[in-house]
Amino acid sequence: MKSAIRNPQSAISNLPIGIFDSGVGGLTVYRALHERLPNERFVYLGDTARVPYGTKSLATVERYAIENSKFLEAHGIKLLIVACNTASALALPAIREAVNIEVLGVIEPGARAAVQAAGGRAIGIIATEATVQSRAYARAIGAIDSSVTVIERACALFVPLAEEGWVDTEVTRDVATQYLAELANDGLGALVMGCTHYPILRQVIGAVIGDDVPLIDSGEATAQEVEIFLNTKKIAGTPREGLADERKLCDDLDHFYVTDAAERFAKVAERFLGSVPSVLEAVEVWGHDELRTN
Amino acid sequence: MKSAIRNPQSAISNLPIGIFDSGVGGLTVYRALHERLPNERFVYLGDTARVPYGTKSLATVERYAIENSKFLEAHGIKLLIVACNTASALALPAIREAVNIEVLGVIEPGARAAVQAAGGRAIGIIATEATVQSRAYARAIGAIDSSVTVIERACALFVPLAEEGWVDTEVTRDVATQYLAELANDGLGALVMGCTHYPILRQVIGAVIGDDVPLIDSGEATAQEVEIFLNTKKIAGTPREGLADERKLCDDLDHFYVTDAAERFAKVAERFLGSVPSVLEAVEVWGHDELRTN
Repeated sequence: MKSAIRNPQSAISNLPIGIFDSGVGGLTVYRALHERLPNERFVYLGDTARVPYGTKSLATVERYAIENSKFLEAHGIKLLIVACNTASALALPAIREAVNIEVLGVIEPGARAAVQAAGGRAIGIIATEATVQSRAYARAIGAIDSSVTVIERACALFVPLAEEGWVDTEVTRDVATQYLAELANDGLGALVMGCTHYPILRQVIGAVIGDDVPLIDSGEATAQEVEIFLNTKKIAGTPREGLADERKLCDDLDHFYVTDAAERFAKVAERFLGSVPSVLEAVEVWGHDELRTN
Repeated sequence: MKSAIRNPQSAISNLPIGIFDSGVGGLTVYRALHERLPNERFVYLGDTARVPYGTKSLATVERYAIENSKFLEAHGIKLLIVACNTASALALPAIREAVNIEVLGVIEPGARAAVQAAGGRAIGIIATEATVQSRAYARAIGAIDSSVTVIERACALFVPLAEEGWVDTEVTRDVATQYLAELANDGLGALVMGCTHYPILRQVIGAVIGDDVPLIDSGEATAQEVEIFLNTKKIAGTPREGLADERKLCDDLDHFYVTDAAERFAKVAERFLGSVPSVLEAVEVWGHDELRTN
């Protein structure tokens, strides 16, 4: 009872949702959450001092993910979204052990949406090297329907292409063809964009893989599940009059933190979202105890 | 006299040369040093847990560079080479303050070689975002000859293309054309490859910029200056019979350390050098005092 008094349901409802990503890519997940949940506030952390995670090892990704999660937990959030596919693939168990809040990753929602869309046909996964090596999507899909064929492909150049702003160029089409031509011949029932940057290149990816193959955005799939989760737990944000209509991406109800190079983050954010965070702050998340005891 | 007795010149000569880089790119500098100095042993540190530096801020690059330098200093080296252009551009003064050994970066040797090759004509610099923003090459060239025009261009996609092994593909040629076409029209007297990865793409870069423009490899320029430095200071490695002929890249006289993902490092090393380090170890360099006091 004591904790219920200290944290009544309505107070929890008013807390923001925490989102962390290795860098700027998670903004596509933020956008999906923001669009679906206009009554929520968000606290976003981009670990830009240590980006990218996609080429790093399990132990390192776990350590970084725990530090990020503790930073957000200390800010008072009602739910933690691990927007980074690599961190979701590698570090969810470690994060859940380290913090005392609910944690949702993007892999399982993406896997569920893919199985639903594919109707029993093969599912393609495009992601970073680390996510592909983890086989996290294949395992998540196998747990739902073990008869589904899963074909995975690392697409290392998609992240720098998206960050460079080469969204619809000849080069990007050629790179996409290089990576996806084989997959396009596999008669896929769905293709999962298993990295937060990839939805930025959605047009080109869709054109190469074929219009008949549903593209699954794990961020959007996660936003759907977050909505259900908040309603089920009765901790959804209270609708405030007019707020939903007035909410804009990156307005001052949402707070953005980066571990480095805020200026570059703002520049890429504008490229990705069309707007720059109103509240953007550089912070340190490496707490040091973990570093010394690991 | 006491220190001379404890560290006689011959003992110093036998110490290895330390090299650090943000990751795997510095292997091109290692190769250049190894080729020119077959009597030397090398200790290489790749900070693969925090790579890349090229999109990070001054403060962060300084912190990482100091940690790397102290790690190598503790290994007993006679000279520290900062192979990473970004760290050379941003962190040399901070490194020199933090360690008690001689420190050489790659920017000034690259700048000197470029001025010599360009014969008064404009010099192009291609590098990472952070190196270009630092204007370190322009300043180094200006200090030698203030009348030389310097044109700088960040080429963010060259690093992932080199690491992906897309060395001579249609895509790489298109990307190079995109980045370099304007520079090619500027009547350059020399083009500096101001990032350790770029020599891997030397063929394509040369083809786009034109055969008549000398390509300056800052790693090679640095190796030349290291040779002179060692001879001047009389601390060059002692020729041992037959050793120079037998030395191979990555043999067990050279030790390689990485801060993460040794397996991936070995894979890219093979792609870059044609051989895998015989001695390769994953280590932690973040000591912790620096982290807490910064």
